[in-house]
Amino acid sequence: MAGDGSDQRALQYEQTLMYGRYTQELGVYAKEEAARLRESGQRRSRTLDLLEYDKGRCAKCRRSGYPYVLEAPAQDFISVCTVRCQKFLISRVGEDWIFLILLGLVMALVSWVVDFCIAICLQAQKWMYGGLDSNLFLQYLAWVTYPVVLITFSAGFTQILAPQAVGSGIPEMKTILRGVVLKEYLTFKTFVAKVIGLTCALGSGMPLGKEGPFVHIASLCAALLSKFMSVFGGIYEKESGLVGIKDYSLLGTKNESRNIEMLAAACAVGVGCCFAAPIGGVLFSIEVTSTFFAVRNYWRGFFAATFSAFIFRVLAVWNRDEETITALFKTRFRLDFPFDLQELPAFAVIGIASGFGGALFVYLNRLIVQFIRKQKTINKFLMKKRLLYPALVTLLVSTLTFPPGFGQFMAGKLSQGESLVTLLDNRTWAKQGIAEEFDYIGNAQAWKHPQVNVFVTLVLFIVMKFWMSALATTIPVPCGAFMPVFVIGAAFGRLVGECMAAWFPDGIHSDESIYPIVPGGYAVVGAAALSGAVTHTVSTAVIVFELTGQISHILPVMIAVILANAVAQSLQPSLYDSIIRIKKLPYLPELGWGHHEKYNIRVEDIMVRDVRYITLNCCYRDLHSVLMLGHLKTLALVESAESMILLGSIERAQLQSLLSQQLSRSRRMEYIRERAAAEKKCLSDVSNSDSEDGRQRASQEVRFQISTEESTVSPTRPASQKPLKPALKRPSVMERPTKLPTSPQDHSGIALKSLFCSSPDVEALEDDGDVEDDMTLREIAEWEERQLDEQVDFNNCKIDPAPFQLVERTSLHKTHTIFSLLGLDHAYVTSIGRLIGVVSLKELRKAIEGSVTVKGVKVRPPLASFRDSGTSSSETEATELHKLWDRHRNVSLPEEQPTSESDEKSQ
Amino acid sequence: MAGDGSDQRALQYEQTLMYGRYTQELGVYAKEEAARLRESGQRRSRTLDLLEYDKGRCAKCRRSGYPYVLEAPAQDFISVCTVRCQKFLISRVGEDWIFLILLGLVMALVSWVVDFCIAICLQAQKWMYGGLDSNLFLQYLAWVTYPVVLITFSAGFTQILAPQAVGSGIPEMKTILRGVVLKEYLTFKTFVAKVIGLTCALGSGMPLGKEGPFVHIASLCAALLSKFMSVFGGIYEKESGLVGIKDYSLLGTKNESRNIEMLAAACAVGVGCCFAAPIGGVLFSIEVTSTFFAVRNYWRGFFAATFSAFIFRVLAVWNRDEETITALFKTRFRLDFPFDLQELPAFAVIGIASGFGGALFVYLNRLIVQFIRKQKTINKFLMKKRLLYPALVTLLVSTLTFPPGFGQFMAGKLSQGESLVTLLDNRTWAKQGIAEEFDYIGNAQAWKHPQVNVFVTLVLFIVMKFWMSALATTIPVPCGAFMPVFVIGAAFGRLVGECMAAWFPDGIHSDESIYPIVPGGYAVVGAAALSGAVTHTVSTAVIVFELTGQISHILPVMIAVILANAVAQSLQPSLYDSIIRIKKLPYLPELGWGHHEKYNIRVEDIMVRDVRYITLNCCYRDLHSVLMLGHLKTLALVESAESMILLGSIERAQLQSLLSQQLSRSRRMEYIRERAAAEKKCLSDVSNSDSEDGRQRASQEVRFQISTEESTVSPTRPASQKPLKPALKRPSVMERPTKLPTSPQDHSGIALKSLFCSSPDVEALEDDGDVEDDMTLREIAEWEERQLDEQVDFNNCKIDPAPFQLVERTSLHKTHTIFSLLGLDHAYVTSIGRLIGVVSLKELRKAIEGSVTVKGVKVRPPLASFRDSGTSSSETEATELHKLWDRHRNVSLPEEQPTSESDEKSQ
Repeated sequence: MAGDGSDQRALQYEQTLMYGRYTQELGVYAKEEAARLRESGQRRSRTLDLLEYDKGRCAKCRRSGYPYVLEAPAQDFISVCTVRCQKFLISRVGEDWIFLILLGLVMALVSWVVDFCIAICLQAQKWMYGGLDSNLFLQYLAWVTYPVVLITFSAGFTQILAPQAVGSGIPEMKTILRGVVLKEYLTFKTFVAKVIGLTCALGSGMPLGKEGPFVHIASLCAALLSKFMSVFGGIYEKESGLVGIKDYSLLGTKNESRNIEMLAAACAVGVGCCFAAPIGGVLFSIEVTSTFFAVRNYWRGFFAATFSAFIFRVLAVWNRDEETITALFKTRFRLDFPFDLQELPAFAVIGIASGFGGALFVYLNRLIVQFIRKQKTINKFLMKKRLLYPALVTLLVSTLTFPPGFGQFMAGKLSQGESLVTLLDNRTWAKQGIAEEFDYIGNAQAWKHPQVNVFVTLVLFIVMKFWMSALATTIPVPCGAFMPVFVIGAAFGRLVGECMAAWFPDGIHSDESIYPIVPGGYAVVGAAALSGAVTHTVSTAVIVFELTGQISHILPVMIAVILANAVAQSLQPSLYDSIIRIKKLPYLPELGWGHHEKYNIRVEDIMVRDVRYITLNCCYRDLHSVLMLGHLKTLALVESAESMILLGSIERAQLQSLLSQQLSRSRRMEYIRERAAAEKKCLSDVSNSDSEDGRQRASQEVRFQISTEESTVSPTRPASQKPLKPALKRPSVMERPTKLPTSPQDHSGIALKSLFCSSPDVEALEDDGDVEDDMTLREIAEWEERQLDEQVDFNNCKIDPAPFQLVERTSLHKTHTIFSLLGLDHAYVTSIGRLIGVVSLKELRKAIEGSVTVKGVKVRPPLASFRDSGTSSSETEATELHKLWDRHRNVSLPEEQPTSESDEKSQ
Repeated sequence: MAGDGSDQRALQYEQTLMYGRYTQELGVYAKEEAARLRESGQRRSRTLDLLEYDKGRCAKCRRSGYPYVLEAPAQDFISVCTVRCQKFLISRVGEDWIFLILLGLVMALVSWVVDFCIAICLQAQKWMYGGLDSNLFLQYLAWVTYPVVLITFSAGFTQILAPQAVGSGIPEMKTILRGVVLKEYLTFKTFVAKVIGLTCALGSGMPLGKEGPFVHIASLCAALLSKFMSVFGGIYEKESGLVGIKDYSLLGTKNESRNIEMLAAACAVGVGCCFAAPIGGVLFSIEVTSTFFAVRNYWRGFFAATFSAFIFRVLAVWNRDEETITALFKTRFRLDFPFDLQELPAFAVIGIASGFGGALFVYLNRLIVQFIRKQKTINKFLMKKRLLYPALVTLLVSTLTFPPGFGQFMAGKLSQGESLVTLLDNRTWAKQGIAEEFDYIGNAQAWKHPQVNVFVTLVLFIVMKFWMSALATTIPVPCGAFMPVFVIGAAFGRLVGECMAAWFPDGIHSDESIYPIVPGGYAVVGAAALSGAVTHTVSTAVIVFELTGQISHILPVMIAVILANAVAQSLQPSLYDSIIRIKKLPYLPELGWGHHEKYNIRVEDIMVRDVRYITLNCCYRDLHSVLMLGHLKTLALVESAESMILLGSIERAQLQSLLSQQLSRSRRMEYIRERAAAEKKCLSDVSNSDSEDGRQRASQEVRFQISTEESTVSPTRPASQKPLKPALKRPSVMERPTKLPTSPQDHSGIALKSLFCSSPDVEALEDDGDVEDDMTLREIAEWEERQLDEQVDFNNCKIDPAPFQLVERTSLHKTHTIFSLLGLDHAYVTSIGRLIGVVSLKELRKAIEGSVTVKGVKVRPPLASFRDSGTSSSETEATELHKLWDRHRNVSLPEEQPTSESDEKSQ
């Protein structure tokens, strides 16, 4: 019972970091959407089956369960598409390639266009600022207004079009790749909002990043592309038709697992085309989004990311920005002696300090969000004026960076990219005068201040940018934190490097040849270390090599990154995990290391014992009541309430379509026709068959009575406790299902609506206008009551015969591993074949979070505490269920009362 | 029944590539060894439990199942170790770190020492060759004899000490990381054999590689280090004591999964310290050895490999080989314009050609092995003179590379490292004369021949080295193929590069500045592409960057590697998979892409229905007969033969210890004592209790009879079909279990021996010398018969209550994914809780290989073929079982005959 219901609640999380109260019934919508898509997917696959019929694969068609009528437009569509499809099928060897190449191409174009627009925006700001140099106030106004307008527009645009586009997107992608459906996150609207919002946000010059959003954009792109491709050959939806039984774990349908694989590749593309770093992109996306990675998917990521990075850089060449394909932030450190062995302690210090800094950044970011959420007055005010917070933050940040003002002490006039280029410069700032063979870069002047030392400038830059970045990433616009952190890290490394250069003006090396210290190398190390610490990844090292085009500092970088990770991981979760917690996304936390008590917790300690199930011999009324009770995605099917032997699981949508088919208008029409025929027959030969008919009728009535009794002892909920409801409401409520259209793929969606959010009166009125339907409302209600008392025929229902099972003694560790390996949502707990409980992600999350604190020091007595938490969780579960039950009872149909009425009538 | 028995047979694979007939009963030994180690591990963990007793963790101790007596030396050991242990426990945060640092350190030292020795060997050869330049024949003799002696020594040494050390080791590591125990592969003997064998083999100058063996050496090192560490604090064995129930899937015990994780990290260290390529090492080892990779283990690999690479390079600095830490094969390509966009087609050509070349290499390698195996006469001859084949191959190769002979046309005098350095040189050979700022490297002269063009030299080099490498890697010495392939790839790239340079003498770029083509860059691309094609990995790209210290060619390298992989993967398996097939290692092949028929195969089509099981109420005789029947690692425990409800699985060793305890000498002594006491009592009060005693005795006899009947209708095998055996043999056979020592940890091993490979007569004679034992052989036999008829008490037995279960309709795809994700060995198939079959790796392998051919083009009718193969496989299984059964009946104890005899007596 807790299994999927938890999802629905978890899905109603706060959508923006900032506005903690922004909730909506996303879960319900998502599920309707999913059901609809699934149905249409089946339809498409069936279409394809027909296409392949002539290829001798008719076996598949025989598998199609329930009757299905092909509409005329669909048939037209088939005939048009056949040639195209066959072409596609011929080239099926390359189908993945085509998809990945298209994805890479599109993303490279998007990345390039976004970069181009951002560059124009930044240039415009500079031009405005430069043009108004006569008047300082006007200059300030221009400097400040420009970003405020852009950020406000970005926040407003995103808020209106798709609030899901807010933020980095990596936490959401992590959740989606875990197997949880966050449907709204992969729509075209979100794509548009994210791209435009991101461009405006970054064009403002605020310390925001492009990388996280690009992961999201690439995933959006992959999802949309996959839809687009399926319109052409249907290849990307085909497999679902081949699978006779659908099992909705990640592994079950190839289609779903393929989608996940494609999304994983898309994440790699996102990073790859953002930094022109294919290898680092693949590794970073794996580290950030996956728990277990299938090595066989490796090549997809590499292929797509390489192609994307290639196109991205080729565009720069064609645009005459570059002469040939090179790194984005190319460094020119000397090759023959990149660093001395004795400099390694300094690199290690950078690593350790970056670790602390990274943890502090994550903490600060969370602190800001939580502070604003807690302060009721601030929160209320900001909820009303949603665009005020972004504007205020932008105003503050841009005021502080105003170049003639405080900005002069922190290189305020440089954009992020410019600062990074200057920080990675291979000349020494502290002690100029050493021969330089490279041309002078003008931007480096910004770091020099006539009165103030370059060290002070750097320290101010680091400190100011640190809190500014932590603050800016809480703005509800599409933005990442990677690049700001990267720049801060580079500045910190540069600071250490300049200190070293000042300390050892002629280098450390004791031999005859003088190798001066290269502060730029320290900047590279610092950038990798700090960004690694914030994201808890090692692959920032690779990104840094690909970004700079030099790998000579590999060992210092690796050492610093590993040390930074070691420190940061022991202090704070990664930024993305922190956001997952803040947003309460349904993600399974990692098991901590060395938590031995995990071995003493068994599934029986955490499972929910009050499982909701349906029996093989239940009637439609039971189905109805079970469907009313919650939002479980799948329901367990057991042999009987006594034996409780688990036979399989059925999807909610399947049950809904079963129910709505049973109560469908077409069946009622059939009944009317039959009744009319029977009446005719009855009239023609009244005399001889009257007594027989009466007997038959009586027996039917008896049968109904029996089945009613059956439903009264329904296993899910004792019916006797339900209060009687005013009979007035009944007819309108009961006839709603009769309004359902006849085409099966639309049933479930409307059934859902009719069950949960209907407006009955209008539909009841419409229903009366029908010609053939001569039944009165009362008659319809009676008919429906009879229908509900019939036994469910599961023959046309797709049952997953192999839902995931655990036994009660399975350890928490094993459960966790299985859940994260297989991307499970829930698993049934059986004892000798008998269903005794269910464990969902929620219980598992509770059990893990109960014992594993962030610092991993909390140790509880092994079993007792978990027995407590386990039972208490199931208790709250039960009470929540009761609440839900009561609510539903108040709102909608009382089932038992009509039954008793119809019984009275039939008797 | 097929479950684990298949392993045992699979383990008897050919151990050397060359001598296909070399088999031994490795499986049996491995299992005994595993049982012994497990027992001693439990003992150690119990010791630790006692140590932790004062920490309030007494709950664990109560879990220890069977009685156990701590020996005196162990207690001494405890008191000595307590202080040390506590120190270890205090620093437990860093326990993994310590291990990884030690591993990295040791491996770096090993790698450096091996490199140093190889360098000395190669220098010695050059010195000898150079010193004898007066006489061409003597020179030839020296040139040829030296490698022949070294290789022969290496082959002989390896063959004698540890034949497991032969070959690359990556296929074996892949299998071990999959969860299969290849115990002999991780011993100290193998370590010594591999290190010394490898040094000699590479010192000979043959085209062999160091990388594969280093993966194996690092794993060996990790395994030995883990043993060593466990002697000091026992930390690495501790968890097993914490787990009340042992489940032997990969996930079950943390200890085992930790070992696997450490081995995975070790593989990364192996590559990392071999090439000083930490990132590439981690990625390569993941790609080569894993199917699914847990991202949380990522840092271990990175940490250990970085540390190892660091130490490895620091050693070079300390040895004054290098001034500072740099790449192994440093290149000095220009940074500002590494390559032109228009050169990309050439790079793509290199990639595609390398793909074909890689596939050809794998094919050629396999062809050579299979050719020699097939030719009976050659094979027989070589089997007798095992060292002849290595000597002959070496003679052939070194004759052809003799510098004054044919070697002059293929740079024969250069060692592998030297050729690689010259190939990566950034000058152009074809058209010399462009200004060079770097110092001249003398070795490049070897490529120039006065009469012959450099293109001819390169082509000859490529062609000759190609088949030489494919041939040389079949020699039974420790050797890899990565480095030879890498060099060939570099030569091929160089060839293309030189052609390009000759074609475009002034570069392709049309602008004012002239950027000549750098053939060295092509060599880098070629090396990465060909090695990537042979190993089916993308991470050779990263290795190449780390090896050369330059990342400027990232896009060409990535494009070429991906193209090479695409081509090679569609033609041939990877070299390692090819060796796995040749050696018939128990590895699960990958599911091919786009094989839709996989979705139509269900577990019921491939499972073995004749499962061997034990029932809850079985007697020891049943246990005995089940244990006699096969080598299953675990046995299913069902409720009863009628209900077949699966309760769990029990390890073989557990059952063996149960059985040997039941028949143990101590219990017999107890019986004797009891009998003596009863007789005394009987003598003291004969009169009053005589009748009662008689009654009691009679009832006991009746009980025995009943239980005998139970065993006669034993579910595993109908007893009535068994032939009667001569009674002579019986006593000696039956008393063997009485000879077992009393300490429980030794039982299983000897019980195994007594069951399968005993020499009864000696033991029987020894037994007679005992003082207390006054029972005659006949009495002992009677007593044992009675013991065997008792019902098994499973209370002290560790039962895994959650063996992995599937249902009959689980698809092959899902089964495959679950097996490879969870590293399963077998899974039970249940239907509504009833055990109906078992699927092991073997069945899965058959099912997959039945449909997936190498080229992925074979398509069969979806279900029929698998129904066939499924049933036929279970049939052969059954007949094999019959054979086994017959053999055992002939060789060892006939159980039913004694039963009937004892029945007669008791009646």
